[in-house]
Amino acid sequence: MRGNYYGPLAVRVAFFMSTNTAYQHIWWEGGTLGLLDQRLLPQQEVAVQCTTLGDVVYAIQSMQVRGAPAIGCTAAYGMALVAHQALGSTAELLAQLTAAKAALDASRPTAVNLAWATARMLQVAQAHASASPKVLRDTLLHEAHAIMAEDLAMCYAIGEHGLALIPPRGHVLTHCNAGGLATAGLGTALAPIRLAYERGRSIHVFVDETRPFLQGARLTAWELQRAGVPLTLITDNMSAYFMRKGEVDCVIVGADRVVANGDIANKIGTYGLAVLAQAHGIPFYVAAPSSTIDLTLPDGDAIPIEQRDPAEVTTIAGHNIAPVGVQAAHPAFDITPNHLITALITEQGVITPPYASKLRQMMHAPASIRVVR
Amino acid sequence: MRGNYYGPLAVRVAFFMSTNTAYQHIWWEGGTLGLLDQRLLPQQEVAVQCTTLGDVVYAIQSMQVRGAPAIGCTAAYGMALVAHQALGSTAELLAQLTAAKAALDASRPTAVNLAWATARMLQVAQAHASASPKVLRDTLLHEAHAIMAEDLAMCYAIGEHGLALIPPRGHVLTHCNAGGLATAGLGTALAPIRLAYERGRSIHVFVDETRPFLQGARLTAWELQRAGVPLTLITDNMSAYFMRKGEVDCVIVGADRVVANGDIANKIGTYGLAVLAQAHGIPFYVAAPSSTIDLTLPDGDAIPIEQRDPAEVTTIAGHNIAPVGVQAAHPAFDITPNHLITALITEQGVITPPYASKLRQMMHAPASIRVVR
Repeated sequence: MRGNYYGPLAVRVAFFMSTNTAYQHIWWEGGTLGLLDQRLLPQQEVAVQCTTLGDVVYAIQSMQVRGAPAIGCTAAYGMALVAHQALGSTAELLAQLTAAKAALDASRPTAVNLAWATARMLQVAQAHASASPKVLRDTLLHEAHAIMAEDLAMCYAIGEHGLALIPPRGHVLTHCNAGGLATAGLGTALAPIRLAYERGRSIHVFVDETRPFLQGARLTAWELQRAGVPLTLITDNMSAYFMRKGEVDCVIVGADRVVANGDIANKIGTYGLAVLAQAHGIPFYVAAPSSTIDLTLPDGDAIPIEQRDPAEVTTIAGHNIAPVGVQAAHPAFDITPNHLITALITEQGVITPPYASKLRQMMHAPASIRVVR
Repeated sequence: MRGNYYGPLAVRVAFFMSTNTAYQHIWWEGGTLGLLDQRLLPQQEVAVQCTTLGDVVYAIQSMQVRGAPAIGCTAAYGMALVAHQALGSTAELLAQLTAAKAALDASRPTAVNLAWATARMLQVAQAHASASPKVLRDTLLHEAHAIMAEDLAMCYAIGEHGLALIPPRGHVLTHCNAGGLATAGLGTALAPIRLAYERGRSIHVFVDETRPFLQGARLTAWELQRAGVPLTLITDNMSAYFMRKGEVDCVIVGADRVVANGDIANKIGTYGLAVLAQAHGIPFYVAAPSSTIDLTLPDGDAIPIEQRDPAEVTTIAGHNIAPVGVQAAHPAFDITPNHLITALITEQGVITPPYASKLRQMMHAPASIRVVR
């Protein structure tokens, strides 16, 4: 295990955005990066301290931290950490940052936020090529903090925009964890749910456990339980049962990448849910910030799908659940084509089909006029 | 834990039906019923000995033995066990058998084979109301053996009929365990697969792990691995991914009950698979013996769905995977409506829609002319 452990509970709790409680699970302290080790939740709340770029890469690869916006923030601090430790000239630092970006980007291939954050950090560095190493270091740390702060605000905006889509009875199904633990704030898919609950609206969440990594059972259930939001944990294969019974009013999930035609990549199982939602006439919403949007790829089939270790399928919490030596597959993500998506919920507004033109408009327009409905 | 354990490996291996190997996991020995404890597979092969009706009821309830045909055989031996232990008159024994039937039928509500087997045993007993207790005891044991033998032959016949439905490339997806461990023979859904492999046909099986009880990962993977059949274990939420990639040629599952209009009940997750198969134009087959067919219910919504302990969702192998106190649901079965089923594979032949008339014809015709295509 990489990184130093602070020991139990070095997790900070920050109050922000009206009365919401969010867990600050990514933080900068004394020149190091602190992370809540999400692999140990919900049994243990343990923080890990990253002191080297290798620690940060390992944290992302091993899923100590996961969720597209959260790994974007983590990667930004990874770049700041490299700058913090650099001893040479600004030119040498720029070379180190370029190498660090490559290492971070390669740590997980599907989410685009990682490359988005490292590109933004590298651009800032390159714009300060004539500054002293100290100025560059401070500038990069400031930029990482800014990415965190923007992510927090982004979550809140997604929550506000998404709130209007939650039906009065409010039985929402979600998959994986697109909550506070996947972002710097309230989450993406969970943000409208959290706001609905806080404002006294009727809300109940079906939480897919999300095999093999159990992000739903371990993380989403933990977050919602702490926030007091009523939930029912189900295995992934139960969602169709509850849809057929008429108990699901809408599905809201996050995304690791949204491409030019509105196709998305998200946690394995999302595509099947979208097909089931359509078959039952249930709206299927994808909540994602603009940092997740990648207009360089024409459609979902161009998105690289991370194939993880099959041992994550054949074992649960270190316990072997299958015969020794059995072959297993572990695609970590799948592609949901645009025609199955009722709307995209972004921090700039809700986008309905056709997606291609509206995504182009949103991403190319100046931020001040980025309202696309 | 009820029943006495024989200790590791009291499992018998019987060779039958050409070169196939089946595991005789239900057996009668010295006036007791032996069962392979399927809850401990694949890590341990341990037999449990049932010496009382209570042991048998517990074995079915706790899923030491599971699978619709297998629990039918087990219940038949449960009735034989009651007769074996009875000390009083034939009239007293008949009363005990009536009570035993009620206890066994209530042990699991969804599969109809249980009530089918106990009804058959009770009818035989009632037909021998004037016989001595000893004759009745011997007759009932003979009947239980007959039910086992018929089940074994039924599996083989399902295999032969189903073989024609497996496409040349033979990428088959299955859910739960409808194999040898669910029957007295080769299984229902797995029988065509086993025969295809044995006859040198190209075959590869995607095995859904089947949360929460993991019958796919623990039992189907174990059976297929032992038989040498190539397989890929996947989490339940990966099936849509492989369907979209064109890697699944057909789906074959078992059933716990088939009702008059052709709707079926089967392990939770089956319905979602059927919807996904239809959305991808993939044939969806249900393999089930006529002992699974219940013409007394008009449609699937009349089938009682067993709601099991939510702790089976929040824990895996005794390990808590969710926050303490979280609410979970555990419907153990779901209903797949007839319009999603390409064909039913029975021991008497393959039935295609419309099901209602053909099922009536099959069940009401004398056995000798029961060939419905």
